[in-house]
Amino acid sequence: MLYIGIDLGGTGIKAGVVDEQGNILIKDSCPTGSERGYEAVIHDMANLALDIVQKGGYSMADVKAIGIGLPGVMDQRTGRVPFCTNLSWHDVPLVEEMAKYTDVPVFADNDATVAGLAESVAGVSAGCKSSVFVTLGTGVGGGVIIDGKVFTGSHGVATEIGHMVTVDNGLQCTCGKRGCWERYASATALVNEGRMLCALKPASTLMQQVNGNIRKINAKHVIDLAKEGDPECARIFDGYIHHLVVGLSNLINVYDPEIIVLGGGVSHAGAFLLNAVRARLPKYVFFKDLPYARVELAKLTNDAGIIGAAMLGR
Amino acid sequence: MLYIGIDLGGTGIKAGVVDEQGNILIKDSCPTGSERGYEAVIHDMANLALDIVQKGGYSMADVKAIGIGLPGVMDQRTGRVPFCTNLSWHDVPLVEEMAKYTDVPVFADNDATVAGLAESVAGVSAGCKSSVFVTLGTGVGGGVIIDGKVFTGSHGVATEIGHMVTVDNGLQCTCGKRGCWERYASATALVNEGRMLCALKPASTLMQQVNGNIRKINAKHVIDLAKEGDPECARIFDGYIHHLVVGLSNLINVYDPEIIVLGGGVSHAGAFLLNAVRARLPKYVFFKDLPYARVELAKLTNDAGIIGAAMLGR
Repeated sequence: MLYIGIDLGGTGIKAGVVDEQGNILIKDSCPTGSERGYEAVIHDMANLALDIVQKGGYSMADVKAIGIGLPGVMDQRTGRVPFCTNLSWHDVPLVEEMAKYTDVPVFADNDATVAGLAESVAGVSAGCKSSVFVTLGTGVGGGVIIDGKVFTGSHGVATEIGHMVTVDNGLQCTCGKRGCWERYASATALVNEGRMLCALKPASTLMQQVNGNIRKINAKHVIDLAKEGDPECARIFDGYIHHLVVGLSNLINVYDPEIIVLGGGVSHAGAFLLNAVRARLPKYVFFKDLPYARVELAKLTNDAGIIGAAMLGR
Repeated sequence: MLYIGIDLGGTGIKAGVVDEQGNILIKDSCPTGSERGYEAVIHDMANLALDIVQKGGYSMADVKAIGIGLPGVMDQRTGRVPFCTNLSWHDVPLVEEMAKYTDVPVFADNDATVAGLAESVAGVSAGCKSSVFVTLGTGVGGGVIIDGKVFTGSHGVATEIGHMVTVDNGLQCTCGKRGCWERYASATALVNEGRMLCALKPASTLMQQVNGNIRKINAKHVIDLAKEGDPECARIFDGYIHHLVVGLSNLINVYDPEIIVLGGGVSHAGAFLLNAVRARLPKYVFFKDLPYARVELAKLTNDAGIIGAAMLGR
C-alpha cells in the first residue's frame, strides 16, 4: 500500500507519495498562501496530493491514507484544528474539508509529533518502541512514541513539552505562563541571549559578526562562536545546555523513553550540541545507577514532515 | 481467581486476599523490622501471604499472583529492587527470594504506582483509561496509567514526577538536583515553610499551636490554620498551591490524562485543597479552550496499597 504525506508549513506545502517502509517515491511542493483562508489552502493540499499520485503513475486506489503534519494542534476526536497560529487558523474543520476532494481517510497531527514518528519509522529511532523527539526551533515541540504508537493523550493536548515550566516565575511565555522550557531551550532563547550580550557589550565578537545589527543574530551565530571558543558565546551556550538538560531530565523522569532525539534548527550544531548534552545529562538524571534514554540527533531533516505525515495513516 | 496484595512499608507489612474487582476478602498485618535484613522481611511477607489464604479458607491454587507495593524502585527486567531507602535495601533480589516460599508469580512496583492502579481499578479513577495519581506525602510520587495499564517506561525509571525540576536552581533536593517539584509540593514543603515562619515570627499562631516546639509542626497544622483564615498560614498554603499547580500543569502537558488523582497526607485537606487547585489550574493550562484532566481526591486510603498490589498480577 501507499501513503500520502503532507507537510503543511507557514510558507510552503510539501507532499509526497510514501511506501510502507517510509521511502518517498515522488514529492512536490507549492506555496501555502495562508492569507487566502483555510478553504483555499486545503484545496491546494488536496490538489497537490492528487497531482503527485498522477505524476508518479500511481492510482488513488493504491493510497491507503493521507496524513498531514501541521504547525498547530489537532483535535483527533473532532477532526478539527483548534489552533494553528502560523496559518491564522482557528477551529478549522480540516478532515471534513479534505473529504470534499477525496474519499481516502485523512489523519493529521502536530508537526513535531509527525517528525518524531518519521524518525521512529525511518530515522534514528527506528526499531525503538518508545522515543521522545524534541524540536529545538522557534519554540520547543515534542513528538512522543509509546509502544510504537504516537502518544497524544486523552484530549490530544499531551506532549506540549515546550510549555513544561522549568523555571518557576521565570521569563514570560507567549502562552501566558512564566518560565516555560521553550523560553530557555529554543533557538529563540539563544538569539535573545545573543542580543542581550550585544546590547550590553557592543564590542563583543558576536556584534562584529553581524556588523552591529543585532536583528541579524541567529542561533547559528551564537553556536558557531561558542564552538570557536569565544568566551561570551561559550557562556551563553553553556547556560543554554543547562536549561536544555534540565528539561531533558524531566522528560526522562516522566516518559523514560529508550531514546531522545534532538531535532530542529539548534540540532544542526551536531556533535557540538550532542556532546555537551551527553556530558551534562548524567548529573541531572534521578537514578544515577540505572540505565536511561540515550540522546541522539535527528537523521531525517527536510523530509521528516512528509514521511511522518504519511506514517500517520499506517 | 484471587490475588494477594502486599503493602510493604517502612514500619509495617499489610497483606490481603483480593478478588478480580479489587475487593479485599481478608487482610492482616505484621511489623516490617527492616533492621533484620531483607531475607527476614521477605520471609515474613511470604508467611503473611500464606497465612491469610489459609485463615480465609482459600487455597493457594486459587491465587493467580502475588503483588507487592514498596516504597522504592523496582527493576521489572531483573526482578530486583535497586533502591529502597526506607528499608535500607540496595539491589535486593525480591522476586527470586519470594520464589523460595511460593510458586505463584510475583509482581512488584513502586507504592505510588500501586496506589494509582488501585484507584484506577476500584477507586475514583475507575473506568478511566488514563490517569495520573500524585501522592503528596514526605515526597511526591506518581502512578501513571496509560491505556488501562501501569506505565513504567523503557527502563522502569518513568513516573518519577516528584523529581521533575520546576524551580531551576531552586531548593537542594536529596537526589542531588535543585528545584525538584517535591521540594515544593510535598507535605514536607508545608512543614519546612511552617518552621521557617515560626523561626521568623515566634509570636505566630502556628507557633502557639505547637506550644513553641517547631519540631512538632506537621502539614495538617499549617493547612488547618490556613483553613481557619490565619493570614500567615494562608500565605504559605497559597504558595504551596502555586507550586503544586505548576507541576500538575506540567503533568497535563506531558501525559494529558483523563484524570489527576491527589493522594497522600496533604490530600486529607479534602475540599479545601481540591477547590484551591481547581480554582488555579485553568490559568496554568496551555490550551485555555480545550478540555483537560479533571482533578479529584483519592478515594481508597489505607487499603489502596493492598488492592493496587494485588491488581499488579491481574
